[in-house]
Amino acid sequence: MTENCVISIDGMGGDAGCSMVVAGLERFASSRGGVRFLLHGDQTQLEAALRSAPKAREIVDIRHTEKFIAMDAKPAQAVRRGKGSSMWNAIEAVKTGEAAAAVSAGNTGVLMGMSSMILRTVSGVHRPALCASWPTPHGVCAVLDLGADITADAEQLVEFGIMGEAFARAVHQKENPSIGLLNIGSEDIKGSEVLKAAASLMKNCGHDVNYIGFVEGNDISAGVADVVVTDGFTGNIALKSAEGAAKLVGDLLKSSLKSSMWGMLGAMIARPALKRFQSRVDPRNVNGAVFLGLNGVVVKSHGGTDALGYEQALNVAAQMAASRFKEEVAANIERLGEAVKAASQNAEPDTTSTTEAAE
Amino acid sequence: MTENCVISIDGMGGDAGCSMVVAGLERFASSRGGVRFLLHGDQTQLEAALRSAPKAREIVDIRHTEKFIAMDAKPAQAVRRGKGSSMWNAIEAVKTGEAAAAVSAGNTGVLMGMSSMILRTVSGVHRPALCASWPTPHGVCAVLDLGADITADAEQLVEFGIMGEAFARAVHQKENPSIGLLNIGSEDIKGSEVLKAAASLMKNCGHDVNYIGFVEGNDISAGVADVVVTDGFTGNIALKSAEGAAKLVGDLLKSSLKSSMWGMLGAMIARPALKRFQSRVDPRNVNGAVFLGLNGVVVKSHGGTDALGYEQALNVAAQMAASRFKEEVAANIERLGEAVKAASQNAEPDTTSTTEAAE
Repeated sequence: MTENCVISIDGMGGDAGCSMVVAGLERFASSRGGVRFLLHGDQTQLEAALRSAPKAREIVDIRHTEKFIAMDAKPAQAVRRGKGSSMWNAIEAVKTGEAAAAVSAGNTGVLMGMSSMILRTVSGVHRPALCASWPTPHGVCAVLDLGADITADAEQLVEFGIMGEAFARAVHQKENPSIGLLNIGSEDIKGSEVLKAAASLMKNCGHDVNYIGFVEGNDISAGVADVVVTDGFTGNIALKSAEGAAKLVGDLLKSSLKSSMWGMLGAMIARPALKRFQSRVDPRNVNGAVFLGLNGVVVKSHGGTDALGYEQALNVAAQMAASRFKEEVAANIERLGEAVKAASQNAEPDTTSTTEAAE
Repeated sequence: MTENCVISIDGMGGDAGCSMVVAGLERFASSRGGVRFLLHGDQTQLEAALRSAPKAREIVDIRHTEKFIAMDAKPAQAVRRGKGSSMWNAIEAVKTGEAAAAVSAGNTGVLMGMSSMILRTVSGVHRPALCASWPTPHGVCAVLDLGADITADAEQLVEFGIMGEAFARAVHQKENPSIGLLNIGSEDIKGSEVLKAAASLMKNCGHDVNYIGFVEGNDISAGVADVVVTDGFTGNIALKSAEGAAKLVGDLLKSSLKSSMWGMLGAMIARPALKRFQSRVDPRNVNGAVFLGLNGVVVKSHGGTDALGYEQALNVAAQMAASRFKEEVAANIERLGEAVKAASQNAEPDTTSTTEAAE
């Protein structure tokens, strides 16, 4: 599936820098074939890290640069001055066609700005969106936008739906993903005018989309929809509020078990079960958010992840690269454009006859 | 503290109707004194339920009505036709001054609409807000608006801050509650223009508010602020997304422990610790959201709660009734009004001199 695919990597991104990246590559190389990597960053540091990653060594080509983007860089400035950095070069390789996707664990704002500047938005899509996988009882769902922009109009929300649908097919292997619009109630009368317009357009977007209506915040984790669409402000708040709550519950469980001898003994006996639980709620398993809507795939890994999480981000990149995401989105965005045009033409008053007909 | 306080109750609200309400009253009566209740609803049903609640019987006066609001009622219609229902009468008793607060576990939309219609918004406050307690590692924080309205401008957000501050003092016993504005980043440049204007107004709102800046979704559960302010759309999404994630984590824990013999044995041994954990994440302990900004206190209990949860909603009502919430909000809203007026006067160009000064 991923034969002869090349992925470009920002070797210096992430809190732990290149050692984490290379350890993730080593894991990937041990479990998956058919992919080669362009590894951008400081040659000396990368060579040193690769000494303990023999399988990764065989599938990477180092592309040296001394310049890299600091994790706490200010986006606007870093994007302007970032040319030649490991992040820039990783994205640039996608633009030139050398690589099918780029991966970075670096500063999110910079990666977003740099990707938009280098790759530009796909024709027909108004704005890119950040899409991530969200755990559910049965697997995962795709949620977007998670903060590429703070607002979105009705047409943009439907574009997010089209891209999310293709993402769920490519990365989550869902054949006919269901799409929900995030709102504060499932009834048609709920929410803003933008959401109502988006719901109407979702039903008439020119292709046979599996739109299931409005979904609420709790429906995301319940797995009610395969794709949940919202604007970047709301999506970011939803994701972080959920992460915060999950962390609180996990922390309280740990502290409760540790607060007594019986608790500790019970936890020891139930250890395999608790490990299974931990792996089900492990954020590393859903690492790898994708900027959708650009002329090329860019995957953002969590900056604080480890080799296991980074391997997952590489998997997402490989799946996106091997999929028909681009063609599918292009065709559906074109249909959406036609549908919007047709709707606006129908809405325009025909001055020669409307008045008479209304009388 | 709550001597001679009277609270008015919609005896027929909630999924389980008057039996749950009366059981909650019995719990309250067993642990707390100084409060009497007006119990609105069907006399025969209420008398029957009170037979097994001897302590509650001593502190309630039944106010008979046969009319009640169905849990699945359509808000607009139910509000229009709701006069004389147990919910209506419970709120009406606050308006007439018979009771200091009203409590209902009935339909949220109807309760919100009816409360606004009967009690009207407090002078100086533009819109009411729904405020609830949200669990944190150290206790609780207050979050508002959770859906009374879907948008809020800068001044309204600051009004929410003022009301949330007084709520945290009254119900959470926090002397100098810290206030955060919910946003997608903590830097000043993040978020919408409305949020930036609200942040600026928060710092110059006429009284010495403990404003700590922007907070993110995960900061709510982390307890970073005592009061988190946001518009009703965002607050509702944040709350439900967090509830959904917490439920998912809890469900996965249960299913993991149940999936093996060692898991079950360990859970049995760790049972007291797991019970402590369960009580820390029990939503019943934070039951009781309040509509703030009306001429009177209305507490919304979760419709599906039980006696323990309902007791908590009654506690919230008693605490609000015994507090100086009304006076505090009135004074601070007046100061805010003056601050806004002064700011707009300063912003008006002085046509006689500005041009010269700028040159």
